[in-house]
Amino acid sequence: MIHTTAIISAKAKIGKNVVIGAFTIIHDNVEIGDFTEIGTHCEIGISTPLSDGSPLQFGAHTQIRSHSIFYEGSSFGDRLVTGHRVTVREGTRAGINLQIGTLSDLQGDCQIGDYVRFHSNVHIGKKSTIGNFVWIFPYVVLTNDPTPPSSSLLGCEIGDYSAIATMSVILPGVKIGQHCLIGAHACVGKDVADGMIAAGVPAKTLGPTSNIKLRDGSGLSAYPWTKHFNRGYPTEIVETWTKEAHDYPVS
Amino acid sequence: MIHTTAIISAKAKIGKNVVIGAFTIIHDNVEIGDFTEIGTHCEIGISTPLSDGSPLQFGAHTQIRSHSIFYEGSSFGDRLVTGHRVTVREGTRAGINLQIGTLSDLQGDCQIGDYVRFHSNVHIGKKSTIGNFVWIFPYVVLTNDPTPPSSSLLGCEIGDYSAIATMSVILPGVKIGQHCLIGAHACVGKDVADGMIAAGVPAKTLGPTSNIKLRDGSGLSAYPWTKHFNRGYPTEIVETWTKEAHDYPVS
Amino acid sequence: MIHTTAIISAKAKIGKNVVIGAFTIIHDNVEIGDFTEIGTHCEIGISTPLSDGSPLQFGAHTQIRSHSIFYEGSSFGDRLVTGHRVTVREGTRAGINLQIGTLSDLQGDCQIGDYVRFHSNVHIGKKSTIGNFVWIFPYVVLTNDPTPPSSSLLGCEIGDYSAIATMSVILPGVKIGQHCLIGAHACVGKDVADGMIAAGVPAKTLGPTSNIKLRDGSGLSAYPWTKHFNRGYPTEIVETWTKEAHDYPVS
Repeated sequence: MIHTTAIISAKAKIGKNVVIGAFTIIHDNVEIGDFTEIGTHCEIGISTPLSDGSPLQFGAHTQIRSHSIFYEGSSFGDRLVTGHRVTVREGTRAGINLQIGTLSDLQGDCQIGDYVRFHSNVHIGKKSTIGNFVWIFPYVVLTNDPTPPSSSLLGCEIGDYSAIATMSVILPGVKIGQHCLIGAHACVGKDVADGMIAAGVPAKTLGPTSNIKLRDGSGLSAYPWTKHFNRGYPTEIVETWTKEAHDYPVS
Repeated sequence: MIHTTAIISAKAKIGKNVVIGAFTIIHDNVEIGDFTEIGTHCEIGISTPLSDGSPLQFGAHTQIRSHSIFYEGSSFGDRLVTGHRVTVREGTRAGINLQIGTLSDLQGDCQIGDYVRFHSNVHIGKKSTIGNFVWIFPYVVLTNDPTPPSSSLLGCEIGDYSAIATMSVILPGVKIGQHCLIGAHACVGKDVADGMIAAGVPAKTLGPTSNIKLRDGSGLSAYPWTKHFNRGYPTEIVETWTKEAHDYPVS
Repeated sequence: MIHTTAIISAKAKIGKNVVIGAFTIIHDNVEIGDFTEIGTHCEIGISTPLSDGSPLQFGAHTQIRSHSIFYEGSSFGDRLVTGHRVTVREGTRAGINLQIGTLSDLQGDCQIGDYVRFHSNVHIGKKSTIGNFVWIFPYVVLTNDPTPPSSSLLGCEIGDYSAIATMSVILPGVKIGQHCLIGAHACVGKDVADGMIAAGVPAKTLGPTSNIKLRDGSGLSAYPWTKHFNRGYPTEIVETWTKEAHDYPVS
């Protein structure tokens, strides 16, 4: 299951039924959960003096696609899935079922909840705090330096179930509530309250997300998205979305 | 012509005079045309349950630069040229002479005409339809989900000869006509008529492209660009551009 | 110090105490300075008919991280440091202590001063001229074609000590002075005078950078940044910043 051209440190802890692709390198300080698949041309567990000595930990049923790079000192719950050529630095602490799209760049020293979805080419600055069930779309940047360059970093916070559409920038220290929608190509410099839409450069709050209808002719509201979209989530989660109101803010 | 470190499936169909670089992997379901050159560190023909079983097909005289990734289930006419580390998913159907720049990410399930040019770091969402002789510049995103996240995708359409300048977002379902120019850093939410300029956030139509002069001191109109720019196009195409008016919209 | 899987041309000139990682390729026309470290999966010194025949030259104490790609015909002063998967084309001429972040794409034919910092995913168009001590943040694009596509390229100029914040586009031929700050998500179409802030789409000058305070509670001005930020610069440089006024423009 480990390709003959792969280079695996004898110090790395590899679980059961792990597949490792051709030309991939696994460094020393790595712990890989059972039933994990790592693609070709990856470099996993790069050491760095910036880390605290803790290992890179992948849970069970992880899937890392080809050309990806992870540093030591980060941990992920079960069922992490990545696209190709992702880069993840030390100090990234993520829950279960994270998806990281192709070309995404996680700068490290950040907190990520459960069931988060990063689409392609997302940039997560250090000190970001991301809740559960968050969606971040391509070319979004979470920033952290209010007066670049400086050493006083202020991370962004993104609340549960919020979605940030493509090519948006979240400025340093901004807090986006739960169940928010940030429109495409926005530059968000002020906090956004729960359940609100914000868009534009600079972004302004445009009203509640419940005003937005699905474009499928059904006439249904598009938000909370949990009422109509459940691809890839486990049944027990989806059942809570359909049976309960769960605390969606009333606008 | 095939490097000794390359890993080539015995099931792959490789044409004549094909060069394959070091540390490159060719999977089973791949058909490579004659006189093709594939660079180092590539992964070509990745299998996926999302595909229909059709092969990855490269025409003759294809050039794939290093670190690129293609899935099975896409086809390209002759003379495809890519930059480095491009990613192309299943269901991409493209004509002849496509160029895909470094870091570009084609999400698959899209139609692309002949002689299309993607510069670096272009993101083409699923369900996009792109005409002939289109130019798309760096960090442009063609989106498809009007209410993210949802399952009701609406692809963009880009007409023949149109150019989309850097860092622009085309919102879901938007149709851009022929011979249009989208200015840099635009967010385009409405259709753009043939021969028009659109720019801004949100983008507005600013008038006909024929109003824009070349910046080379000649006093000539910059559009249609086919009147002054022909680098890399075959002589028989360029002759039609210079001898005929071809159906350029009068503004 | 050279991994057994690396493929090194006998024509390449390799200095003393050089480390080269697994699965990395060094082509013919390359000169590597002493005490240099090149990571895994790199391709260094790709030949191209677009170059003038000059070698790719790395100074002493260079560090190239994994999956990076350099063409022949570029030169760098001592202590170049790159992130992962950078791409650098021919004709790039850079001073000492350049840093190029992960995923950055330098298109070549450009001039770069000393102590310049490119963060992740920066795109530097051909004909760009960048001074000393410049900072460019993620997803910034320096463009060059005023009427895309055309052959009349106009490069951007960025003055000493200026900082360009994330997701900004600098339009062709624009000159940004010394000690400027370009805000995040800006589209800059006009020249910016020394010591000024510009932001917005289209960008407008908003006043002197000295108006901006640090967000660390100190009450100090955030600019010139050289008064409070010196991480990674050598002592002899930092001493000039703290002892002298150096020619910071008075607003």
